[in-house]
Amino acid sequence: MSAAGTDAAVRARPIGVFDSGVGGLTVLRALRAAMPAESFLYLGDTARLPYGTKSNHTVVRYAIQAADELVERDIKCLVVACNTAAGAALPAMRERYGSLPVIGVIEPGARAACEATRNGRIAVLGTDSTVRGGAYTRAILALNPQAQVSAIACSVFVALAEEGWTEGAVAAAAAARYLQPLLKDAAATPDTLVLGCTHFPVLAAVIAAVLGGGVRIVDSALTTAIAVRAELERGGLLRTSATETAVGAVAGNELKFLATDGVERFAAIGGRFLGQTIDPAAVELIDL
Amino acid sequence: MSAAGTDAAVRARPIGVFDSGVGGLTVLRALRAAMPAESFLYLGDTARLPYGTKSNHTVVRYAIQAADELVERDIKCLVVACNTAAGAALPAMRERYGSLPVIGVIEPGARAACEATRNGRIAVLGTDSTVRGGAYTRAILALNPQAQVSAIACSVFVALAEEGWTEGAVAAAAAARYLQPLLKDAAATPDTLVLGCTHFPVLAAVIAAVLGGGVRIVDSALTTAIAVRAELERGGLLRTSATETAVGAVAGNELKFLATDGVERFAAIGGRFLGQTIDPAAVELIDL
Repeated sequence: MSAAGTDAAVRARPIGVFDSGVGGLTVLRALRAAMPAESFLYLGDTARLPYGTKSNHTVVRYAIQAADELVERDIKCLVVACNTAAGAALPAMRERYGSLPVIGVIEPGARAACEATRNGRIAVLGTDSTVRGGAYTRAILALNPQAQVSAIACSVFVALAEEGWTEGAVAAAAAARYLQPLLKDAAATPDTLVLGCTHFPVLAAVIAAVLGGGVRIVDSALTTAIAVRAELERGGLLRTSATETAVGAVAGNELKFLATDGVERFAAIGGRFLGQTIDPAAVELIDL
Repeated sequence: MSAAGTDAAVRARPIGVFDSGVGGLTVLRALRAAMPAESFLYLGDTARLPYGTKSNHTVVRYAIQAADELVERDIKCLVVACNTAAGAALPAMRERYGSLPVIGVIEPGARAACEATRNGRIAVLGTDSTVRGGAYTRAILALNPQAQVSAIACSVFVALAEEGWTEGAVAAAAAARYLQPLLKDAAATPDTLVLGCTHFPVLAAVIAAVLGGGVRIVDSALTTAIAVRAELERGGLLRTSATETAVGAVAGNELKFLATDGVERFAAIGGRFLGQTIDPAAVELIDL
């Protein structure tokens, strides 16, 4: 096979996307929008979610098992859509998978926040694990050592997003309870907010309502999609046409799902995050 | 060894208590109150919680792995404190462990509800899995075929209990949203409510506030403790003195904890459910 043939074969491989559950489908949605010709293989570790309350050690172990499954299925690039897993396991994955590009949601989110802020005060909302691990704070300070970062663990938001309670009295009261401490001192109030959990974008409206119109909300799904596209372009791995074919290649624009539990539930709840209906028959049940 | 000696040795063994996480500590608290001389070995499968959103198949698999661990450590009786696991896995456990008494929280809770109700209308609040599985409804109807059972899945309550938001605006709004459908038709409103998840007793006050003073709230922790005591008495296995000793026996009144993840978090959050401080050093990290 010629080098060009080999390149085409690699280009034709799907992009692997990993999340602890269905929240990463918001990232998949952005990835598809940014790269319409690409095929995607999404793995949701629904049997063991949420990662956000687990110890760092367990998050790394589970995330590597899930990523191994995707890598064995011949992806050309791995996107870690789960903030908790990206915060904990990215260095271990990069070491493990050698030349395979591995991109997490944290660095693109931190970069977007640093670009968006005017007063240098950035709030990060995440799960317990993401906040405890401090990866966002480190990533933001690496880009802007003068930034003031407030990280807030908002576990209840995950349950609200999964229940579909994204507006109304419960969501408003929860947002007020988590965020009002940020508003106590006007001179310290952040002007930029990172939604550091894939479940939180569906709550953006109630969060913005508490913080007022001035706050910029950074959605790391979009900035991650842009970063993935740039990385693939750089490596000559971006698929520019859904009809480009090669030996052993999958057709472009394909979407496949793997879940470790609850195929029906994955399809039902996942549709809300992906923004389109998921057929349960398109979801393969796997064991990690 | 004489038969009496053997009996004493069995009596001196700990009671095993299993839950998906820390919620079952409310059951442990009731068990200790009902049987002050007994020793207990509690296992919380914190790495894989919550069970309440998993499929029946996965709940059974995980619950059996956890129960095996307790049985290997020589318990004299197994209490399944997790409503989801009790609803799904009790028959499989009873078959697997032969003569070992296995007691779940569902049957005692159903019995208490049937004793408490006057109008025969009983509401059960549980996790998604517990409600989907229908074990409470079956257990109640087996005792009282005329009962009218309304089962409501209240997933957000789990997150609120773990966050410690057991009062205030968020809890009140969530309780109203879940329970107000029960109040639409006064002639159909239940007079008895089963808290069918070990996380929910800490929310009893806000739940009662929505339903009004007339509703009887059944706490299956207490009724389970009474059922376990009766079962041990029946089998001659009740330890009547903490100082009764036998070859290979553990001292009475001992409390040990096993957790599959996050020993620090288990101790910190668990104390709230057990009603007393848990020393992280008393929690052993295990892998299932």
